[in-house]
Amino acid sequence: MNPLYANLPTTIFEKMSALARETGAINLGQGFPDAGWPRDVLEAGARALTEGYNQYPPMPGIPELRQAIADHYRRHQAVDLDWQSEITVTSGATEALAASVMALVSPGDEVLLIQPMYDAYLPMVRQAGGVPKLIRLEPPEWRLTEAALAEAFSPRTRVVLLNNPLNPTATMFSEGELALLARFVVEHDAVVISDEVWEHVVFDGRAHSPIMAQPGMRERTVKIGSGGKIFSLTGWKVGWMCAAPRLMHALARAHQFLTFTTPPNLQTAIAYGLGKDDGYFTAMRADFARSRDRLASGLDAAGWKTLPSAGTYFLSVDLAASGIALDDVSFCDRLAREGDVVAIPVSAFYAEAPVTSVVRFCFAKTDATIDAALERMAKAR
Amino acid sequence: MNPLYANLPTTIFEKMSALARETGAINLGQGFPDAGWPRDVLEAGARALTEGYNQYPPMPGIPELRQAIADHYRRHQAVDLDWQSEITVTSGATEALAASVMALVSPGDEVLLIQPMYDAYLPMVRQAGGVPKLIRLEPPEWRLTEAALAEAFSPRTRVVLLNNPLNPTATMFSEGELALLARFVVEHDAVVISDEVWEHVVFDGRAHSPIMAQPGMRERTVKIGSGGKIFSLTGWKVGWMCAAPRLMHALARAHQFLTFTTPPNLQTAIAYGLGKDDGYFTAMRADFARSRDRLASGLDAAGWKTLPSAGTYFLSVDLAASGIALDDVSFCDRLAREGDVVAIPVSAFYAEAPVTSVVRFCFAKTDATIDAALERMAKAR
Ligand SMILES: CSCCC(=O)C(=O)O
Ligand SMILES: CSCCC(=O)C(=O)O
Repeated sequence: MNPLYANLPTTIFEKMSALARETGAINLGQGFPDAGWPRDVLEAGARALTEGYNQYPPMPGIPELRQAIADHYRRHQAVDLDWQSEITVTSGATEALAASVMALVSPGDEVLLIQPMYDAYLPMVRQAGGVPKLIRLEPPEWRLTEAALAEAFSPRTRVVLLNNPLNPTATMFSEGELALLARFVVEHDAVVISDEVWEHVVFDGRAHSPIMAQPGMRERTVKIGSGGKIFSLTGWKVGWMCAAPRLMHALARAHQFLTFTTPPNLQTAIAYGLGKDDGYFTAMRADFARSRDRLASGLDAAGWKTLPSAGTYFLSVDLAASGIALDDVSFCDRLAREGDVVAIPVSAFYAEAPVTSVVRFCFAKTDATIDAALERMAKAR
Repeated sequence: MNPLYANLPTTIFEKMSALARETGAINLGQGFPDAGWPRDVLEAGARALTEGYNQYPPMPGIPELRQAIADHYRRHQAVDLDWQSEITVTSGATEALAASVMALVSPGDEVLLIQPMYDAYLPMVRQAGGVPKLIRLEPPEWRLTEAALAEAFSPRTRVVLLNNPLNPTATMFSEGELALLARFVVEHDAVVISDEVWEHVVFDGRAHSPIMAQPGMRERTVKIGSGGKIFSLTGWKVGWMCAAPRLMHALARAHQFLTFTTPPNLQTAIAYGLGKDDGYFTAMRADFARSRDRLASGLDAAGWKTLPSAGTYFLSVDLAASGIALDDVSFCDRLAREGDVVAIPVSAFYAEAPVTSVVRFCFAKTDATIDAALERMAKAR
């Protein structure tokens, strides 16, 4: 048995969702919405299922979806992709990340990881034989500094794993931070695997800035997206990788031996969805922002100190500032068992020197669920 | 870039299907049926899509599907599995294979591969740092011998990758061969990853024999199945891994960082399908056997020498015995470009010392497609 996997725990999201299923607590842990998905996208999927093609689609994805992804990014992010040579559809963004790491990391390569980080990143890098180099961000600003980059980059740096907007901090990297990171990447002849699954879930008039658009990065970026995250259908597992042909050849080979293809009916439905007009995306963002504000103001009113949320389904509470002496893991455990609310301890996103005073809550829930959670949170202090 | 992927070609199945799409040739290459799937399973999927749950299902798969898999194997193969601790649903059998190899192979472990083998196996083993040891089967019998096993096994053998029924040879390993292999595996304290995606596609009253049922193998087998193959819906990508809890812990961890989950609507539909009565499976097998016989007798009548097909969607032609001097790759190339039929050269299933005189045809096609292909094959001699 490979000790890497034999010794790994269950992912924190699954663990906390299982705890919620078991205790009946309100689940504000794992990031999935409980309302708000587009009915017409579901119907497009059902139609494709009963009337369409159910055999192997082309390995890189059906042409309609690859074209729709290219059109979508041209329209929304001024990123210009050739759908035939620069896009591969994957079975979710997790597969896209795994394929990218397998294709781009050789044993001994140094890989930069920015903590807090999604819990899949480190095992993926380890499995590929990469040597992780950790950069650590800290609350309340979670900013990336030149000093931290200078310390982390080395002549052996081959890959940087970026998540922007950043889960769990709900922050977006600034243009300055992206330009700085791009400069280091170009100088070191490295590549960025850029997990941008939250690109559409950004608030208050903000626009997502893909690192691929930074100077010198067009040929050095794997941009990863997720149809499930864009359309609030997290179970669908339709993701994609976008990259210059020089990188795409290896990425597609890794994909071909991980899942080979992705169900064509769901691809058809996501292709349909990506063509929706701007109004849809604006309304979706406004809805999530309203939910964010509802949870944040309710928590604030109950004396909890919340951190700002610029994007993602999440906002965080600073335990220390809220007068809670417990660490995040003990607090989440107590909250689940006594307070009947499940949240995620942010220390789970660190491999070393964890921040232990921040707890993440998912606000992508109905008003009724948020209000019920707030009632319980008011008593949990 | 990881040279393993940078240097890999596109899989032979995708290459030949792309050639068929490009030339308009009849595609008897990649294994997918062009008819015969169950309408009610499609409708169960569509219903689950529009009326069911579309967010992350539990990471190991929805309980209904895991229960249905356990029930199905209890009913059809006398394999007794605990659905909660011994089954994990994956995004297709390819992911199940990748997760199994990643979980069970550590760098330096010797892994036995039986040629001809599905083209994903070797890159998966290489990616995991495994040391491949090749056993070579030969036409027309493709039998596994004690001498070959004795030569291949060593004290460093950790894993054997088995495919039974075997693609592309369309043979099934005998009870004697399975018992022999099991004896070597137990003696060497190894594990078998058993790709049994063709378990239901077996003909002439044969019954599939899972190696997990051999003495000593219950705790040493990862049994891999495929809903897409069982229900002739190859694009669905709903697979699974079955193994004792001691192995399953690591397998599930690998799955969690490859795709995390599989679309719940398709899981629901496959769960429904697995509950169909015996008559469904008997009729499905009879239909495929009729198609096999139609293609085989047509080819025989036109002077082609075919090899027997005991299972899978495939049958093969022996080129040398058919009086063709070309090797399989040149023949398939000529057949696609001049004869307008796409087939698969069996040498693509060998990593070394390929058999180059056998070509594989997929018969999971309508009578009209088979007849049209036969007409062209009659002229291609
Ligand atoms: C794949 S489960 C995790 C979902 C998610 O993005 C999160 O909760 O952070
Ligand atoms: C994943 S494409 C290959 C399908 C198949 O099993 C075959 O043609 O052998």
